[in-house]
Amino acid sequence: MDVKIIGQSLPNMPWEERPKDCKDIVWRSKHNPIIKRNQAKDANSIFNSAVVPFKDGFAGVFRVDDRARRMNIRRGFSKDGYNWEIDDEPINFIQETRDPLVSEYKYDPRVTFIEDRYYITWCNGYHGPTIGVGYTFDFEKFYQIENAFLPYNRNGVLFPRKINGKYAMLSRPSDTGHTPFGDIFYSESPDMIHWGCHRHVMSAGYTPWQSLKIGAGPTPIETSEGWLLIYHGVLLSCNGYVYSFGAALLDLEKPWIVKARSKSYLLSPQEYYECVGDVPNVAFPCAALCDALAQEGLQYTMAVLILL
Amino acid sequence: MDVKIIGQSLPNMPWEERPKDCKDIVWRSKHNPIIKRNQAKDANSIFNSAVVPFKDGFAGVFRVDDRARRMNIRRGFSKDGYNWEIDDEPINFIQETRDPLVSEYKYDPRVTFIEDRYYITWCNGYHGPTIGVGYTFDFEKFYQIENAFLPYNRNGVLFPRKINGKYAMLSRPSDTGHTPFGDIFYSESPDMIHWGCHRHVMSAGYTPWQSLKIGAGPTPIETSEGWLLIYHGVLLSCNGYVYSFGAALLDLEKPWIVKARSKSYLLSPQEYYECVGDVPNVAFPCAALCDALAQEGLQYTMAVLILL
Amino acid sequence: MDVKIIGQSLPNMPWEERPKDCKDIVWRSKHNPIIKRNQAKDANSIFNSAVVPFKDGFAGVFRVDDRARRMNIRRGFSKDGYNWEIDDEPINFIQETRDPLVSEYKYDPRVTFIEDRYYITWCNGYHGPTIGVGYTFDFEKFYQIENAFLPYNRNGVLFPRKINGKYAMLSRPSDTGHTPFGDIFYSESPDMIHWGCHRHVMSAGYTPWQSLKIGAGPTPIETSEGWLLIYHGVLLSCNGYVYSFGAALLDLEKPWIVKARSKSYLLSPQEYYECVGDVPNVAFPCAALCDALAQEGLQYTMAVLILL
Amino acid sequence: MDVKIIGQSLPNMPWEERPKDCKDIVWRSKHNPIIKRNQAKDANSIFNSAVVPFKDGFAGVFRVDDRARRMNIRRGFSKDGYNWEIDDEPINFIQETRDPLVSEYKYDPRVTFIEDRYYITWCNGYHGPTIGVGYTFDFEKFYQIENAFLPYNRNGVLFPRKINGKYAMLSRPSDTGHTPFGDIFYSESPDMIHWGCHRHVMSAGYTPWQSLKIGAGPTPIETSEGWLLIYHGVLLSCNGYVYSFGAALLDLEKPWIVKARSKSYLLSPQEYYECVGDVPNVAFPCAALCDALAQEGLQYTMAVLILL
Amino acid sequence: MDVKIIGQSLPNMPWEERPKDCKDIVWRSKHNPIIKRNQAKDANSIFNSAVVPFKDGFAGVFRVDDRARRMNIRRGFSKDGYNWEIDDEPINFIQETRDPLVSEYKYDPRVTFIEDRYYITWCNGYHGPTIGVGYTFDFEKFYQIENAFLPYNRNGVLFPRKINGKYAMLSRPSDTGHTPFGDIFYSESPDMIHWGCHRHVMSAGYTPWQSLKIGAGPTPIETSEGWLLIYHGVLLSCNGYVYSFGAALLDLEKPWIVKARSKSYLLSPQEYYECVGDVPNVAFPCAALCDALAQEGLQYTMAVLILL
Amino acid sequence: MDVKIIGQSLPNMPWEERPKDCKDIVWRSKHNPIIKRNQAKDANSIFNSAVVPFKDGFAGVFRVDDRARRMNIRRGFSKDGYNWEIDDEPINFIQETRDPLVSEYKYDPRVTFIEDRYYITWCNGYHGPTIGVGYTFDFEKFYQIENAFLPYNRNGVLFPRKINGKYAMLSRPSDTGHTPFGDIFYSESPDMIHWGCHRHVMSAGYTPWQSLKIGAGPTPIETSEGWLLIYHGVLLSCNGYVYSFGAALLDLEKPWIVKARSKSYLLSPQEYYECVGDVPNVAFPCAALCDALAQEGLQYTMAVLILL
Repeated sequence: MDVKIIGQSLPNMPWEERPKDCKDIVWRSKHNPIIKRNQAKDANSIFNSAVVPFKDGFAGVFRVDDRARRMNIRRGFSKDGYNWEIDDEPINFIQETRDPLVSEYKYDPRVTFIEDRYYITWCNGYHGPTIGVGYTFDFEKFYQIENAFLPYNRNGVLFPRKINGKYAMLSRPSDTGHTPFGDIFYSESPDMIHWGCHRHVMSAGYTPWQSLKIGAGPTPIETSEGWLLIYHGVLLSCNGYVYSFGAALLDLEKPWIVKARSKSYLLSPQEYYECVGDVPNVAFPCAALCDALAQEGLQYTMAVLILL
Repeated sequence: MDVKIIGQSLPNMPWEERPKDCKDIVWRSKHNPIIKRNQAKDANSIFNSAVVPFKDGFAGVFRVDDRARRMNIRRGFSKDGYNWEIDDEPINFIQETRDPLVSEYKYDPRVTFIEDRYYITWCNGYHGPTIGVGYTFDFEKFYQIENAFLPYNRNGVLFPRKINGKYAMLSRPSDTGHTPFGDIFYSESPDMIHWGCHRHVMSAGYTPWQSLKIGAGPTPIETSEGWLLIYHGVLLSCNGYVYSFGAALLDLEKPWIVKARSKSYLLSPQEYYECVGDVPNVAFPCAALCDALAQEGLQYTMAVLILL
Repeated sequence: MDVKIIGQSLPNMPWEERPKDCKDIVWRSKHNPIIKRNQAKDANSIFNSAVVPFKDGFAGVFRVDDRARRMNIRRGFSKDGYNWEIDDEPINFIQETRDPLVSEYKYDPRVTFIEDRYYITWCNGYHGPTIGVGYTFDFEKFYQIENAFLPYNRNGVLFPRKINGKYAMLSRPSDTGHTPFGDIFYSESPDMIHWGCHRHVMSAGYTPWQSLKIGAGPTPIETSEGWLLIYHGVLLSCNGYVYSFGAALLDLEKPWIVKARSKSYLLSPQEYYECVGDVPNVAFPCAALCDALAQEGLQYTMAVLILL
Repeated sequence: MDVKIIGQSLPNMPWEERPKDCKDIVWRSKHNPIIKRNQAKDANSIFNSAVVPFKDGFAGVFRVDDRARRMNIRRGFSKDGYNWEIDDEPINFIQETRDPLVSEYKYDPRVTFIEDRYYITWCNGYHGPTIGVGYTFDFEKFYQIENAFLPYNRNGVLFPRKINGKYAMLSRPSDTGHTPFGDIFYSESPDMIHWGCHRHVMSAGYTPWQSLKIGAGPTPIETSEGWLLIYHGVLLSCNGYVYSFGAALLDLEKPWIVKARSKSYLLSPQEYYECVGDVPNVAFPCAALCDALAQEGLQYTMAVLILL
Repeated sequence: MDVKIIGQSLPNMPWEERPKDCKDIVWRSKHNPIIKRNQAKDANSIFNSAVVPFKDGFAGVFRVDDRARRMNIRRGFSKDGYNWEIDDEPINFIQETRDPLVSEYKYDPRVTFIEDRYYITWCNGYHGPTIGVGYTFDFEKFYQIENAFLPYNRNGVLFPRKINGKYAMLSRPSDTGHTPFGDIFYSESPDMIHWGCHRHVMSAGYTPWQSLKIGAGPTPIETSEGWLLIYHGVLLSCNGYVYSFGAALLDLEKPWIVKARSKSYLLSPQEYYECVGDVPNVAFPCAALCDALAQEGLQYTMAVLILL
Repeated sequence: MDVKIIGQSLPNMPWEERPKDCKDIVWRSKHNPIIKRNQAKDANSIFNSAVVPFKDGFAGVFRVDDRARRMNIRRGFSKDGYNWEIDDEPINFIQETRDPLVSEYKYDPRVTFIEDRYYITWCNGYHGPTIGVGYTFDFEKFYQIENAFLPYNRNGVLFPRKINGKYAMLSRPSDTGHTPFGDIFYSESPDMIHWGCHRHVMSAGYTPWQSLKIGAGPTPIETSEGWLLIYHGVLLSCNGYVYSFGAALLDLEKPWIVKARSKSYLLSPQEYYECVGDVPNVAFPCAALCDALAQEGLQYTMAVLILL
C-alpha cells in the first residue's frame, strides 16, 4: 500500500535515524528524557507535551505540575526541538466566554493548527474534568472559549481541518475519578462552541495492552489512506496500570469508521524514565511532528518528549 | 411573594384536594398506584411516566420494562388521567439522523411541548447511557434525532421554550454504571442537534436527602419568579439508596443560577408501592401537570403516577 | 413442537389449575408461602427447599437457617405436599470420605434420584463454599462423600441419569463472597468422586434479568427435545439485586449445548413474601415436581415452596 | 443459675405478658410501632429511642431525622410509656467545653443515670462521627461536654455506675462511612473528659447474625452474675445488611471480660415495620427498662420503641 | 535433621557458589536477569519460566507475552542453562480432548516429568482462568488434554510421581480477576482427567509476607522428610502488592498435611529487575533444578530465571 | 519575619551545606540512603527512623521489618549520625499497664524528649492499629504504658513540652486498612494515660500533594512564631499513592489553630531509593534534628534517613 502523508514539509525536524539493531516502527530519541522534570520554575514535573512547528523552530504547550502538585499548562519555545525554554508561569488565557468560567486545573494539552490559528485543547477542571478549548495566533496572546462538552471527559483532540464542513474532535468520556473504562468518540461542531452528531469510534478491549481504556493521543495525521491516529491504551496488570500506545487508521470522511487498528502496541514503558516516577509505567503521547516529504517511521522524540 | 405560574389553564386537570389532616406541600393521589405494574402486555413494570395534556385528555410516554427486563418506552392515552391505555409495543421511532444509530435501550422519558411539537428526551443506550432526543406532532409518528450529548448521561430535561434564542436542557452527567455521584448541568443549542455553553447548576450535597446525587425531574415550570424545577435526590443510607424529591427555583434568563432550593424533600418513599419492589425506596418524578389558573399546591398524582 | 416429558407419572402431584385471569407459563400456589419461616424448631427461616416424591407422599431437604443464622439442611416429610413436618435438627451425615472433612455450613440443597438412591448436593463450607455431595436410600440414613469440586462453587445440580456413561453435574463457579458474576458449567464423573471434562454451558448476560449471574435450579427434567433446565438469574438494579428465574433447553447427549433459552423470566419476585425479608427480591427455585402424564404448565408451588 | 438484677423497682413499667404461643426470650409489644415516624413536627422518622424512668413516668431522647434528612436528637415525655410527646425542635445543648465545638449532626442517643444526673451519649458529627457526651439533671437544661473520643466512633454507651473508681464506656470504633467492620471496646475516665485504658471486649464474627459488625445497645444492666449487655449485630446477606440483636454477660469488675455471649439472636427484623423503610431490615435497641423486682423476660417495647 | 533429596543427580547443573558475604539460604545468579525481556521474536516480556533437564542440557516452557500483551507459552532449549533459544511462536498443542476446547490465553507454566513424559500445566483461559494440562515426550510434539478443574483457578502444579496410586496436583482457586485472596489446595486423579478428593493444604496469612494470597511454585521436590514446596506469597502494602517466596514441607503420603512452613521469605523483590517493570515488586518462582547428590542450598537462577 | 527556634544547641549536628545549584528549602544528604535496608540482622528493611541527640552522639528507634515482614521497632546508636549500630532484636518493653496488653506489631516510631525522659510513640497493633506509648530514661530499659487512643489510629506524635499543663499529642484517626482518608487531630492528657479535649487541626485536601490524607511527622519544633510541624501528605495518582511532605505552623498555646501551611511540598519522592522498593513513591519523615543556634534550613538527612 502506497501511503502518502498529506501535509507540510518540515525540513528542520529533529530526526534521528533508527538505531542499527532496532526493527521497531517507533524508536526513542537518544536524548530522552529531553525535558527534565524540574527545568521550569517551581516544577514538580513536565510531561505530556504538545509541540508544533512555529516560525523557524518550535513552540509547545506543556503540562507542568508545580510543587503543590497543581496541574496547569505552560508555553515553551525551542529552536531545535531539543533545547526548550519553558515559561515560569501557566498560560494566562483571555476569556472569550459569555460568563467567566472557573478552570480548577488544566492538564494534558494538545495543539492543532486549523486554518489560521493554533487551537489548544486540554483536560479542564470545571466541576469535574472536561475538554477545555482555546486558541492563539502567535503564542503570545491566548484566548479561552467554551468547554466543548459536559463533564466528565478527557483526551480531547481536534482534527487539523474541517470535515464535511464542521470542526471535528475525538474525546474519551470518563467519570469523576481515575476511570477504569474508556472508549474514543467523535463529535462535530459548526462553530467550535456547540457540539453534536456524536459517534462511537473505538472501544477498549481489542487486545490486552488496550483492554481497560483508550484515548486519542496527538492530532490525527492525514494520509492518503485515512487519518493516522496514535492513541494510548491501558492494561490493568495484577499490580497497577500500564500505559502503552499504538495506532489506528480512520476513514477520511467518516472518521468514526476504523479501517485498521494495531494489535500490538508501538511502544510500551520500558525505560527507567517511563517505568519509575510519580505515575509508574506510562508512555503517553500528546504530539507528533511529521515531515510530509521524507518520513519512514515515527520517532519517539518530539512525539512525546518526556514521560515520567 | 406573589408567584404566578406562566402557562396554560388545564381545566380537566385530575385534581384532588389536599387531605384534611395533611399539611404537606405535595400529597399523593388517593388512586395511587394509578398504573399497575403489569397493565400493559408483557410488562414487568411501568413507571417514571411522562404525561402531557393532549387534545381533550392526556397522552404519555411510559417506561415499560418487559419481562426480559429490557427497558423501553411506550405510548399511552387517557381521557381522565386515571385510566390509561398503554401500547403493547415500544414506540417505533423514525430515524432522522445522518446515519442509523443503535439504541440499545430507552428509559426514564420526559415530554416537553415546545412551539409546535412534543419533544421527548430519555436515557438512551448508545455505547453507554446518554440523552436520546425525539419528537412527535401527534403522538402517532415519532422521529428520533441525534443524541444530545456524549455518554455518559441521564435525566435530560428540556425547558418548555427557548431561552435567549436557544433551546435549553438540564442533564446529569454520570458514569457507565449506577453512578455514586451526580450534579445538574445546563446546556444550550441553536438547532436541537449541537449543544454547548454548558453550565453547572447545582451539586449534590446541600442537605442529606440529596447528598449523593441529584437529577432534574419534570419539565421546569415557568413562574413569575423563575423556573420551578422539581428534582430527585439520593441519600446513601447504611443499607441502600433512598430516592426523594424536592424543588428549586432557577433564574428565568440564566437558569444555571439557583435562586432557591428546598432543604427538605417534598416527598420521600413511605408508601408500600414506593418502598417495596424491584428497586426499593424510590420516589422519582418525571412529569408534572399544572393549571396556570388555579393552583395552590402540587399533587403527587400525574406527576409521578406509579413508583415501584 | 410436540414435547414429551420423559419420566414417571405423579398422580398425587399437588396440582393447582392456572388462575382464570392468568396467562403466564408459571403460576404461584394459592397456599404460598407453604412453609412458614419458623415452623421448625429454632428456625430463623426455611427456604430453597428440595422436594421429591417419596413413598406415597413427599420427602424433602430444606435449608433451615437457625437463629444464630447458621445455615444447615434438614429433612422433612409430607403426605400432600402442603403440610410438612421438618426435623428439629440438621441432617447428621455419616462420613464416607477417606479422612473426616469439615463442613462449616450447608445450604441451598438439591435432591436427585439416580438409579437406586437419592443424591443430595448442596453448597458446602469447606475453606470456602463448594459443592457437597451425599446420598440416602431411605431418608433415614444419610451418607456424605467427597466434595465434587474445589472451592469456590455454588448451585451444584445433578442430572437424573448418567449421560454417556458418566454422572453429570451443573454448577456455578464463584468467589469467596457474594460473587458479582457467575456462569453455568457442566462436569462429568465416572464414580461420583472424581470430576472432569468441564464444559461451559451458559453465560450471564443474555437478557437483563439474568445479566449479572445465573445458576442452575431444580434437577433438569428430561424431555423428548432436550433437558429442561430451570435456572435463576440476577439483575443488579440501582438499589440491589433481583433474583428471577427462567428456563433453557439443553441437548440430551451434550448438555453443554444450549438449544433454547428464555429471553423473559418465567417468574420474578412480586409478592410480599418474595420482595421483603432477610434477602429482599428473591425468587430462587430448588425443586420441581412433574407428572409425565398430564402436564400443561409448571406450578410455582412445589418447585420453590417458600421464598423469604 | 440464680441471677438477680441489681437496681430499682419500676412499678409502672409498661409490661406486657408473653404471648401464649411464644417461647422466645424477647417479644414485641402489641402496640408496636409505638411511635409513629412522623408524630413530631417536620419528622421524616423517629427511632433508636433512649428512654428512662423519670418522675412518675418516663422521659426520653429520640433520634429524629427531619425532612431534610438531617439527623438530630429531641426530648420527649410520657406518662405511660406508650403515649409520647416529642419536642418540635432538637435539644439545645449549653456548651461546657473550653472552646465552642461544632456538632454537624447527632444521632442514636443513649441515656444513662449515674449518681446525680442523666448522661446522654450519641453519635456526634465532629469532622466525622464520634461519641458526643452531655447531661441533664431535669430534662429541661442540657449541657454538652467534650467528645469522649477521637473520630471515628459510634454506639458509645455508659455503664450506670463507676467501676473501680472511674466512669466506664463501651464504644465501637469505625471509619468515616457505613463501616463494614466493628468490634466493641471498653474505656475508662476519671472525670468524664479524658479517657484511657482502652480494652477490647468482643469481636464481630462469633456467629453469623453478628458476623460483620457489632455495637453496644442499651445501658448495661447490672446483675449478680455480671453486666447484661444487649447489643446489635449485623450480617451481610447476598442483598444487603440485616441488623439483629443479642446479649452478652460481662464481668462486673473487668467488664472487658466476656463471661457469656448469645449464639442466637434474641430478635431479628421480621415485622413489616422492621423490614421495610428508609433502612430495611433493622432491629436496633437503644434502651431497656427493667424492674429489679419482678422480671422474667425482656420486652421489646420500651427497649426499642420504633424501628423503621 | 538429616534431609536427603530423593531424585536424580544433575551433574551439569548451572551451579554458582554462595557469594562470600551472603548468609541467605537462597541467592541470585550473577547472570540475572538470564533471559532478556525481548530476546524472542515479538516479545514484550519473558518470565515465569519452567525449566527441566533434557538430554544433555535443558528444555523449558516460557511465558512470553507478545507486544499485544497476549499471554502464551513457548518452548526453549539451552545447553548450559544460561544461553537459551526460545521459539518465535507459541507452542501448538495437538488437542486430545473429546471436543475442541478454546484456550483464550496461556500463562505461568510448570513442567513436571512423571514416569514417561513431561507434563505441562498452566493457567488456561477457558471462560475464565483455569488449569490447562498437556504433555510432551520429546519437546517436539505437544498434546493438550482436558482442563483439570472448573474455573477459576491458577498456579496448578503436579507432583513428580503418583501418590497412593493417583496423580496429585496443587492449585490455587481464585476468582475472575486479580484475586485478593488465595489458599493452596490438593487434588487427586486416577487418570489425569477426572479430579477429586480435594484437600485444603495451606491458607494465606501465616506471616505478613504471605498474608494476602499464596500459590505453589515449582514442582515439589521429594526429600526424606517430606515434599519440599517452594511457594510464592503476596503482601498488600499501602501502595500495591509485593510477591515474595518461601518454602514448606508437606507430608510424603498425605501432602495436604503441612509439617513445616517458613515464617520468613526466602527471597523478596529487591533487585531492579524485580522491583521495576510491567508488574512491579514480583519474585515468582516456577521451576527449580536440583542435584540429588550435592545440594547445600537453592540457587535463585534456574528456579526463576527472569522476573520483570 | 524573624523566627527563632526555641531549644538546645546541637553542635555535633551532622550538617551538610546546601548544594550550590539547589534553591530548595530542604535538601537531601549526600550520604543517602544513610541506613541500608538490611544492615541489621534478619532485616527486610529499615526506615521511618526516629532519631534524637543522646549523650555525645545520637540514639534512635527504627522501624525494622524482618524477613517475615513482621513490623517492629529496634534501638540504635550512632556517634556521628551517619554510622549506626542497630540492635539484632526488637525493643523488649517492660509493661506498666494494669493488665498485660498484646502488641501484635509496632511500626513508624517517633521519639520525643519531655522533661526527664524520652517518650516513644508508634503505631501499635491492638485489635487494629492504634497509638502505642512507652518511655525510656537511658535507651537501656524501655517501659510501655497504656495505648493513648482507641483503634484505629496512626502517626501519633507528642509535643516536646506540656501545653497549658497537659501533655499534647497529634494523631491521625484511620480505619482498619490502608485508609483512603485522614486528617490530623490534637488531644490532651493530664497523665499520659487518659486523653481528651480532642480538636481537629488540619484536613487533607488543601493542595493536591496532600489531597488524600495527611499525618504528623517529626516532633513539632517550637519557634517564636508557633510550632513548626513537618507532616506528610498523600496524593492518589492514576497509578498509586505518592507520599510527600510539607510543613505547617501551629499556634503555640492552641496548637489546633493553623497559622500557616505549605501549599507546595518541601520534598517529594524523586530519588531511586524513594521511588522504588516495597512501597514505591514514599518520602515519610519521622524525625528532625535541629540546632537552635545556627539553622538556615532543614536538611533531609537525619530527618528521614532511609526511605525504601
